[in-house]
Amino acid sequence: MIPLGQITQQAGQWLRGSGPHHEIVISSRVRLARNLAGFPFVGRSTRRQRADVLQRVQRELTTDGLGWDVLWVDLMDCDPIDRALLMERHLISKHHAEADHEHPRAVAIGQDETFSIMVNEEDHLRIQVLRSGMQFDAAFEAINAIDDQLEDRLDYAYSPRFGYLAACPTNVGTGIRVSVMLHLPALKLTGEIEKVRRAARDMHLAVRGLFGEGSDAMGDLYQVSNQTTLGKSERELLDEFEHKVVPEIIAYEQQARQALARQRPAQLDDKIWRAWGVLTHARVLGTEEVLQLLSHLRLGVNLGRIAEVDIRTINELFLLTQPAHLQRVAGRTLEQPARREARASLVRKRLGV
Amino acid sequence: MIPLGQITQQAGQWLRGSGPHHEIVISSRVRLARNLAGFPFVGRSTRRQRADVLQRVQRELTTDGLGWDVLWVDLMDCDPIDRALLMERHLISKHHAEADHEHPRAVAIGQDETFSIMVNEEDHLRIQVLRSGMQFDAAFEAINAIDDQLEDRLDYAYSPRFGYLAACPTNVGTGIRVSVMLHLPALKLTGEIEKVRRAARDMHLAVRGLFGEGSDAMGDLYQVSNQTTLGKSERELLDEFEHKVVPEIIAYEQQARQALARQRPAQLDDKIWRAWGVLTHARVLGTEEVLQLLSHLRLGVNLGRIAEVDIRTINELFLLTQPAHLQRVAGRTLEQPARREARASLVRKRLGV
Repeated sequence: MIPLGQITQQAGQWLRGSGPHHEIVISSRVRLARNLAGFPFVGRSTRRQRADVLQRVQRELTTDGLGWDVLWVDLMDCDPIDRALLMERHLISKHHAEADHEHPRAVAIGQDETFSIMVNEEDHLRIQVLRSGMQFDAAFEAINAIDDQLEDRLDYAYSPRFGYLAACPTNVGTGIRVSVMLHLPALKLTGEIEKVRRAARDMHLAVRGLFGEGSDAMGDLYQVSNQTTLGKSERELLDEFEHKVVPEIIAYEQQARQALARQRPAQLDDKIWRAWGVLTHARVLGTEEVLQLLSHLRLGVNLGRIAEVDIRTINELFLLTQPAHLQRVAGRTLEQPARREARASLVRKRLGV
Repeated sequence: MIPLGQITQQAGQWLRGSGPHHEIVISSRVRLARNLAGFPFVGRSTRRQRADVLQRVQRELTTDGLGWDVLWVDLMDCDPIDRALLMERHLISKHHAEADHEHPRAVAIGQDETFSIMVNEEDHLRIQVLRSGMQFDAAFEAINAIDDQLEDRLDYAYSPRFGYLAACPTNVGTGIRVSVMLHLPALKLTGEIEKVRRAARDMHLAVRGLFGEGSDAMGDLYQVSNQTTLGKSERELLDEFEHKVVPEIIAYEQQARQALARQRPAQLDDKIWRAWGVLTHARVLGTEEVLQLLSHLRLGVNLGRIAEVDIRTINELFLLTQPAHLQRVAGRTLEQPARREARASLVRKRLGV
């Protein structure tokens, strides 16, 4: 097992429930797609070439010269629960975690999980920085510093005409993608979430679930990101996101919360208190159900309608109740029925009942 | 409003959670169908004839000579909430409560609600005695005493060949129907309830829901009764019920409870504790949901897996959470949304949270 023992006990820094607009914005994420010159893209390269890329990157990332203390995780030599754990912590993508394409690939994780660099995912390098709440500027500065240091040591594939080259055309150019994880329980309860989804589509934004592409919006958590990077500067993209897109969605959610509190206070309190009642009493809990209940509880705390728990505990539970985390805490593989019992037991313990 | 003020605060004696086998047998009921000679059956009589029957019966039932202290309720002159209240308390049938056939009809209710006599329901007289737990002998003795006293004063329609005459052929003969209200949550949870239903049908028994004919088995409460009365003596009927039918169903339910506790303890506790968690925290509760939750809670108390509440409180809540009861407690008509809030509030209060 990889030395992740301590990290299963708490959420990454980005989940700490702090940062601007943290009531609705769980986290801000910026990621860059980069490829090495002189090597074919991952999808077109041989196993040998992938191993070469891996070796090349590992040498640069684990050298003392960078001044970073990274945890290098070779995903070929990693048990499936640990891979799932990294995915649950948003340090690697679902695709990178999957076992059905065993080829040389890795991830380098920065201290406090504030950044991670996937090697040989769709691109040679996928660098991401996560911050709690709405912190695009801080995230952008941090990722630029990482990118600059890497560019000093690695020869990036770059075209003067198109910019940074990437395996998928939507990533060519700045290679940047910005995204926010938003908690939108009120828009879900009022049914207006579909309107937001449509508006986002019209603005060429992607709306995805908790674990990105192809995942459901469990726990009323929605990941909103830009779709194309070609033809826009990094600044334009960030500005649009930070000053237009996200504030608009936040305003919608706040209106929905106020409307619920004003027009349907009993129904709102019912959702909140039932969530508390079930979380503190259930003996068996499924993944999806626990996220839904935590979502309603989080809404209740943010609206000041329940004071029994703090946001940080709830945020941590969003993570610790995931299957791989449960198994790492238990220290062994658990089949689904045992996981459901362990989940309920963990929740009761963390909620102090 | 009829003077039922005090009875809405507690359940009738038959719901007190005592009596033999009270863990599974909520109540035993014996009822007789009787008609007056010289009058057509209710379904074939004029309004005038019905009024005459009513007057005739009222005179005999409210006289001091009988030594009973009955509450006479004229259902024509009775508000709809009070009619529903009587139905919820099982003192009149759903049919007798319904407002869409306004004709002279009444009910006489004995002290402590241990018996009731419906006048001008399907038959001129429907006498019923209810007892808590399995108490057929006591119920039978009580109803015989009532029947004998009435027969001294009223001229019953009787045929030496067929016995007591009744509007429906299935009631001709002894005119007796025996039934039990059973709480069968474990058979419901294991899915075996359908087997029991089929077995009961093969034995010519009717299995109905909480409010008899055409009602659902809300709260896992099932009313089992004999279907025909012709050709069998009262004794035979009672013996079959008391010594064969009911003990068999009780044994089935007990086996199912033991199987759940042995094979799926976490799932069982989950049902029980979720019920407690939701009942003590919900702000909005529907009729059906509350009965289902109370059912699981009752199972938990009977199995000794939860000690937070006693059976009598649960039994009373089965009744007090019904729509008419809620409105009588509130002292005013409540629309459905207000009822759902009042229900949740009442439950939290009664459960002491």
